[in-house]
Amino acid sequence: MLVRFDDNYPVTNHLDTFLDESIRLVDESLDKLIPATDVAPSRLHEAIRWSLFAGGKRFRPALVFAVGRTFDAPIEKLLRTASAVEMIHTYSLIHDDLPSMDNDDLRRGRETCHKKFDEATAILAGDVLETLAFQAVAEDKTLSAEMRIVLIAELARAAGTPHGMVAGQQLDLEAEGQAVSVDQVEEIHRRKTGALIAACGKAGAIIGKGDAAELDAISTYSSKLGLLFQITDDLLDVTQTTEDLGKTARKDIAANKATYPSVFGIKESSALAASLCEETIATLNRVDRPTTLLAEIATHILERGS
Amino acid sequence: MLVRFDDNYPVTNHLDTFLDESIRLVDESLDKLIPATDVAPSRLHEAIRWSLFAGGKRFRPALVFAVGRTFDAPIEKLLRTASAVEMIHTYSLIHDDLPSMDNDDLRRGRETCHKKFDEATAILAGDVLETLAFQAVAEDKTLSAEMRIVLIAELARAAGTPHGMVAGQQLDLEAEGQAVSVDQVEEIHRRKTGALIAACGKAGAIIGKGDAAELDAISTYSSKLGLLFQITDDLLDVTQTTEDLGKTARKDIAANKATYPSVFGIKESSALAASLCEETIATLNRVDRPTTLLAEIATHILERGS
Repeated sequence: MLVRFDDNYPVTNHLDTFLDESIRLVDESLDKLIPATDVAPSRLHEAIRWSLFAGGKRFRPALVFAVGRTFDAPIEKLLRTASAVEMIHTYSLIHDDLPSMDNDDLRRGRETCHKKFDEATAILAGDVLETLAFQAVAEDKTLSAEMRIVLIAELARAAGTPHGMVAGQQLDLEAEGQAVSVDQVEEIHRRKTGALIAACGKAGAIIGKGDAAELDAISTYSSKLGLLFQITDDLLDVTQTTEDLGKTARKDIAANKATYPSVFGIKESSALAASLCEETIATLNRVDRPTTLLAEIATHILERGS
Repeated sequence: MLVRFDDNYPVTNHLDTFLDESIRLVDESLDKLIPATDVAPSRLHEAIRWSLFAGGKRFRPALVFAVGRTFDAPIEKLLRTASAVEMIHTYSLIHDDLPSMDNDDLRRGRETCHKKFDEATAILAGDVLETLAFQAVAEDKTLSAEMRIVLIAELARAAGTPHGMVAGQQLDLEAEGQAVSVDQVEEIHRRKTGALIAACGKAGAIIGKGDAAELDAISTYSSKLGLLFQITDDLLDVTQTTEDLGKTARKDIAANKATYPSVFGIKESSALAASLCEETIATLNRVDRPTTLLAEIATHILERGS
């Protein structure tokens, strides 16, 4: 694969290198945005950093970078928004893993926040990661006030209710052990995972000043990509080991969660994912920019092993 | 007391009426900003509304209104910010009451969110109230983008870490059962309660376009007011009944919390509160506006019975 080269961007002609560079860039940015562990209250900042720097794949920031790059946005304008998205994602994981939610001990290959620290600290670490995410964008001096407002509103809708991540979490919890329809599974997934991933793509296009038609196309692309991500996540849960995943495998089954494999079976879910990947890539025809990288990301999501 | 009359404001020449009108105004605004209970996920929206519309005193929104009024800001420009502050405050109460935090069954005279619903729903309701707070300001079309950004950053710092509310919560939890110094108690209180109350005053002055000197004076006024509020809160916890408070009385003692009465005793804490109230009112001399209402609010906080 050849992606365009410029001085500002993760410099690569390989997707893997692009993804690695995205990790490095967002980690560097996050490290600056989160108070150090020698700043009081130390335990809170240790807990945040424990969960935030646990070797996550940083898929969401990479998507912000990849779409931003497609629209020629300078990398420095993307850093805080990419970091904010990862903070929101990590807060949701910390709270998701709590005993009263999914009750999980393992995340990203290490103890979950409440196991390593305690429940109260984990709740507060999640709470404040959400705050720090919005603060990071609000204080982003590389962007105009108008753009920051659009991004904050976009992220809030994607993370919130009734169409965002928390709404999806609630629906997901309510569906446990219930018979759910195909439409319900898709509705849960669109909100729980899809909305924030869709916002990543849109954010990159907003910062890159894409026009209305381009924003619409990228919105469709990233929305489909988000659903694809969740279907493959569901599939990995049943086909991979805990060691490969770095989180407890088969926990969807244990919790009787509404997932694609539980509704469609593994074979049909895989076929659905493959056809959704094609659709996702096809929406890029509506964007008159070099979109090879975005297409490769979709294929990467389809074929990923963890 | 005589406060200036205009068509836009809570119309009153009595502080009590002003406070009642503030409640009515912010409740009306909150009702518009929170999804209805017939919107999915219903249970999430019911839980939010259960805690948000539980008859809170709405002291923080009233302070936004009172300072805004002092600076001649039109009421409609204050509504969403006042609502956002109450959402942040309520999210913190919901999470504070959780079993792994203060483990309380009673709040604002009714069952706490996790008692009425369940822990998972209470965690999500708190999480999304925070999201909705930032969204409310980001989407406030009555304010310029620049002003919205300043307000969001101000609220995030006040609600966050290292100097805001969540940092204070963490320090408070860590201090339980420990011997704490006078400085530590003040430091905890300044962050846990003071920072958000200080932000309310500043927000009113920002929206009312106060100049730098006025903003500084109001910042000092509301910061002192925040500390005064917490000292009287600590005093009420030991002197009032559960019925009067609408929340469990003497729970600070039960949890061995770092409070003013525990460090100074009731008598000296009361004297401290009285002298702090005088200082708070004295800072208003630096504001060349009609500040009678703001002075009366300080006296009201000192003398409040719940």
